[in-house]
Amino acid sequence: MAPTTRPIRSSHGDPVKIGDVATPALVVDAALLEANLAAMSHALPGSRLRPHVKAHKCTSLAARQLAHGHHAFTCATVTEMEGMARAGLGDDLLLANEIVDARRLGALVRAGSRVTLAVDSPETVAAALAGGVEEVVIDVNVGLPRCGCHPADAGRLAETARRGGLAVRGVMGYEGHIVGLPERAKRVEMVRPAMEALLAAHADVGGELVSAGGTGTYDINTWATEIQAGSYALMDTAYSELGLPFGQALSLESTVISVSSGWAVADCGLKALSMDHGNPTIEGAEVWFCSDEHVTFAPHRPVKVGERIRVSPAHVDPTVACHERMFVVEGEQILDTWSVDLRGW
Amino acid sequence: MAPTTRPIRSSHGDPVKIGDVATPALVVDAALLEANLAAMSHALPGSRLRPHVKAHKCTSLAARQLAHGHHAFTCATVTEMEGMARAGLGDDLLLANEIVDARRLGALVRAGSRVTLAVDSPETVAAALAGGVEEVVIDVNVGLPRCGCHPADAGRLAETARRGGLAVRGVMGYEGHIVGLPERAKRVEMVRPAMEALLAAHADVGGELVSAGGTGTYDINTWATEIQAGSYALMDTAYSELGLPFGQALSLESTVISVSSGWAVADCGLKALSMDHGNPTIEGAEVWFCSDEHVTFAPHRPVKVGERIRVSPAHVDPTVACHERMFVVEGEQILDTWSVDLRGW
Repeated sequence: MAPTTRPIRSSHGDPVKIGDVATPALVVDAALLEANLAAMSHALPGSRLRPHVKAHKCTSLAARQLAHGHHAFTCATVTEMEGMARAGLGDDLLLANEIVDARRLGALVRAGSRVTLAVDSPETVAAALAGGVEEVVIDVNVGLPRCGCHPADAGRLAETARRGGLAVRGVMGYEGHIVGLPERAKRVEMVRPAMEALLAAHADVGGELVSAGGTGTYDINTWATEIQAGSYALMDTAYSELGLPFGQALSLESTVISVSSGWAVADCGLKALSMDHGNPTIEGAEVWFCSDEHVTFAPHRPVKVGERIRVSPAHVDPTVACHERMFVVEGEQILDTWSVDLRGW
Repeated sequence: MAPTTRPIRSSHGDPVKIGDVATPALVVDAALLEANLAAMSHALPGSRLRPHVKAHKCTSLAARQLAHGHHAFTCATVTEMEGMARAGLGDDLLLANEIVDARRLGALVRAGSRVTLAVDSPETVAAALAGGVEEVVIDVNVGLPRCGCHPADAGRLAETARRGGLAVRGVMGYEGHIVGLPERAKRVEMVRPAMEALLAAHADVGGELVSAGGTGTYDINTWATEIQAGSYALMDTAYSELGLPFGQALSLESTVISVSSGWAVADCGLKALSMDHGNPTIEGAEVWFCSDEHVTFAPHRPVKVGERIRVSPAHVDPTVACHERMFVVEGEQILDTWSVDLRGW
């Protein structure tokens, strides 16, 4: 599917300028987003990519990923699974996470969605069965101390699942300890042993899926049958340091509300940003710190009260989750307003 | 007003156990909350406290603060002001923040709420006038590099405001650089010069209000006529290190979803917590790190998949803002469900 130059049509009446909306407001640059989606679908067409919706929590954006040829999606929460199904994007949904109560997923299966659930223990296999889930993947630990069984236990767990009546579609293993490493050579070096462990588990498990990877390893991880990247669509300042061919499509429209001698303050703070990756950045300014509703910064040129500025978040996933909507823009013009409709649990 | 032992009545049918709700879930210990509200209203009765709602973003909790005798409130956003007015808590609302478009506040004034707006520049005075706001306080910088005019400029700004037709109710000045200092002696030492600067500005400005302070200085700041504390109601691990007479009433109910050799994982991550004050804590465990939907921790005793644990956030304000609701509990029993209805902007 060829990328289009202006793919997003307004669902509203007259165009509105981004300078007219209340701040802080999440802004998506339409052209940069489309370029990111096109670059990724060129590298990993169709089912080679299973976009992770946790990075944007937005079914309108997921629909754009579908338009670029990807019909299978990755989710991190049951609410994301439900929202994707509700939006008609339930062809092939993977919950790449463990849960101990799968009844809400069973309801999605009965309503016609294809649901696959990650399991890494006898308890999570039992939960899948009790909840009415029919398909699973075995989640394998490939080096990040988080979920996933030991590679040597994967075959036995698959057997347990199949004995219970579940279809086992394969394995997943997220190399989350590697995707964010700044040096590409280091990422290349470390992905191999992680994926060798996953493939060894896959030999014991069977099935067609080897699901792994993220934005930082999308072109390095050639062992997985599908890559679970999500951040590539919007990007953030942390991922931007990796030299990937994706641009920062997301920023926060913010208003300068106070100017003092030596610093200024804009209305974009902790509650509009995520701070786990540190301070946001502002072009032409040094960010000092964030408070609940403020960012204090030292501008390199004079700024005025009432002036609009753009703030770039350090970590896109939790930043998006702070907002109800995102404004899709071309320059100053709002092309569309997308609900961040996959929030909560 | 005497604290009651079980003040919160369920608005639902049969009681539900907190162990039955989907996780992660925000949990408020009813007895600890009431003890915190009682301790504060004893120390700062009635209008001596102007509770800051940004710390809980919940009109049901604000209604409990009203029941403890405080009828005037502090807000950080226009949405908080609107929500408080809508909930019938608009007797005396202070927006302790600068804005450049006050039209939504003007609408509240016309609908009968008492609205006071912080101003620190000719531009924000002009915005108050243009928007239909009638009352302001002069926001004075008392040491934190954020909003607030220089103390020497406060009198002139008050004159500008009065000349435009605004009533100037006094001054505010937030000693945010002091409230979180762990050593009480240091807080005591530093509040004096900050408040001397504020009182000097007040002498030039006039009006009945000297609004300042926070949970960390509630009993130290004896210069202000009213204290803007908010965190005292729910508390967090950061404030708990200050030795204040308020208990941690807020935690996150979470489920263990994966257990490995040496660590375990629960379903409470970055998107359910704020990380600007660092990792959350788990009793009987060492927290290693948080991911979007996970906390990885090393438990001191064995834990099982499916087990519930409580996670204590490091910073209450942005953590609450991640959630749609909070469950008010007595032990395992849910007494009420409160909407976090003041989120967004």
